[in-house]
Amino acid sequence: MLADASDFFRDLQSRLVAALESADGGRFLAETWQSALGTGKGMAMENGAVFERCGVNYSEVSGARLPSAATARRPELAGRAFSAAGVSLVAHPRNPRCPTAHMNARFFQAGDAWWFGGGMDLTPHYGFAEDCAHFHRTCRDALAPFGAEYYPRFKAACDSYFWIPHRGESRGIGGVFYDDFCERDFAFSFALARAAADAFIPGYVPIVERRQNIPYGEREREYQLWRRGRYAEFNLVYDRGTLFGLQSGGRAESILMSLPPLVSWRNNWAPPADSEEAAFVRDYLRPRDWLGLEE
Amino acid sequence: MLADASDFFRDLQSRLVAALESADGGRFLAETWQSALGTGKGMAMENGAVFERCGVNYSEVSGARLPSAATARRPELAGRAFSAAGVSLVAHPRNPRCPTAHMNARFFQAGDAWWFGGGMDLTPHYGFAEDCAHFHRTCRDALAPFGAEYYPRFKAACDSYFWIPHRGESRGIGGVFYDDFCERDFAFSFALARAAADAFIPGYVPIVERRQNIPYGEREREYQLWRRGRYAEFNLVYDRGTLFGLQSGGRAESILMSLPPLVSWRNNWAPPADSEEAAFVRDYLRPRDWLGLEE
Repeated sequence: MLADASDFFRDLQSRLVAALESADGGRFLAETWQSALGTGKGMAMENGAVFERCGVNYSEVSGARLPSAATARRPELAGRAFSAAGVSLVAHPRNPRCPTAHMNARFFQAGDAWWFGGGMDLTPHYGFAEDCAHFHRTCRDALAPFGAEYYPRFKAACDSYFWIPHRGESRGIGGVFYDDFCERDFAFSFALARAAADAFIPGYVPIVERRQNIPYGEREREYQLWRRGRYAEFNLVYDRGTLFGLQSGGRAESILMSLPPLVSWRNNWAPPADSEEAAFVRDYLRPRDWLGLEE
Repeated sequence: MLADASDFFRDLQSRLVAALESADGGRFLAETWQSALGTGKGMAMENGAVFERCGVNYSEVSGARLPSAATARRPELAGRAFSAAGVSLVAHPRNPRCPTAHMNARFFQAGDAWWFGGGMDLTPHYGFAEDCAHFHRTCRDALAPFGAEYYPRFKAACDSYFWIPHRGESRGIGGVFYDDFCERDFAFSFALARAAADAFIPGYVPIVERRQNIPYGEREREYQLWRRGRYAEFNLVYDRGTLFGLQSGGRAESILMSLPPLVSWRNNWAPPADSEEAAFVRDYLRPRDWLGLEE
């Protein structure tokens, strides 16, 4: 099972890199690493024409004791020997009107237990309802062949996962998120994980193409750097993948590749009440039915 | 006891603000807040001549259940009703050769248990051994009247607390740190806490005056923003004060006032091996006997 999953993940990494290189025009740099925990191949692009920072990492790790952060719903598995493989992507475009995106697909095996996890979510800084609808529609359509219940279930899990309690707002506009996924049999679960992962390119790249060339100035840039502070707060305080990586002694540079390239924190600042930025924070950064809007 | 401690903390806040305003030439802005948990007064300066961001916060809070992050060594107190008051300071100078500094002083009461906590630590980005010695000497001299054992004990606790495991380096060059402090009687413990807090101005301000006008360029600035990433990582992933504040539903803007104003994360970047920046990271960011050097 792990070999099949990791074959898929390696191929997925290549396809993601090719699609983002084509959108940007620049090239990713590869770096392979090896540690006591496993091996990995990081692909990174910095200061591209579109992407200020973008990383697509593959890793396969194993360990004598599964860290508690690796499974939220089955604590009885913590402490078991485990093997895992996965791909993780974070794209931080330079243009403030072009959204940040994240995707992940992973497979875990611990004794006779196995499960998939992953998902994709979008973090815009400006409100384009059609982008949100496109992203969510792509998720829904990818999961539909497996059953109509998966999109609403994974959408709700995504809204719940990416909520930032101390800010009272969502990290972005969600998408789909699933974990501890082991339903019917391996073939079914693997097919669903593949479909969810393959939805990323058609879900994200058309949005990048639409937004990457919108003119912007210092005001939009400063607001973007402020929004990115919330992204960094979520990843460092709450994100289970980040905590799993740091707990298990993973490679810090790969794990923290998700952090934005440049971030600002300002004292008690918020966009002016009547600005489009304030309207975005108020209207977009909470769980919403993005597909209900267009139907 | 709490009333005596909070009188001292309020006066301490005024004196810290006055000293930093005098060093900068700018003014702090005051903001008072009130929540279900308590009250506070935040003093903040942004874009000063010396300090890019600086905050000195006073707060007094109480709650029905002491969060686990509030006491590391006495877990049996977690869950008790508690009251607390304290002052917290973080100064982020603009000049990369002028070090960031942090100080804290707090008092907790939970039933018949009470304790002080606090400390001060320095986070330079360039290596000036005499600054490190001055800072540590000020700490040692402030604690000496209470017993020769306190400086080495609190210095070791500081080195241990500010270690960043996933980076294999210290946040800075340390100072003193103490927690769960309740020795002899209240008068003794309070006097020690006052002396430790009062050491901050003579420990830090002379260093600021020495370094604030050293010329620097883009190279030093970019390195500073990269170093600040480690500061943000420590505060958001490990810092007990931050986690206590977020766990107890504290005011996010006050708690996260400690974060640097502008931060960069770069992929797999480090200063060139033969640079003074690389030498600083290698030689300064680990536990060292800063006073042994000069004696």
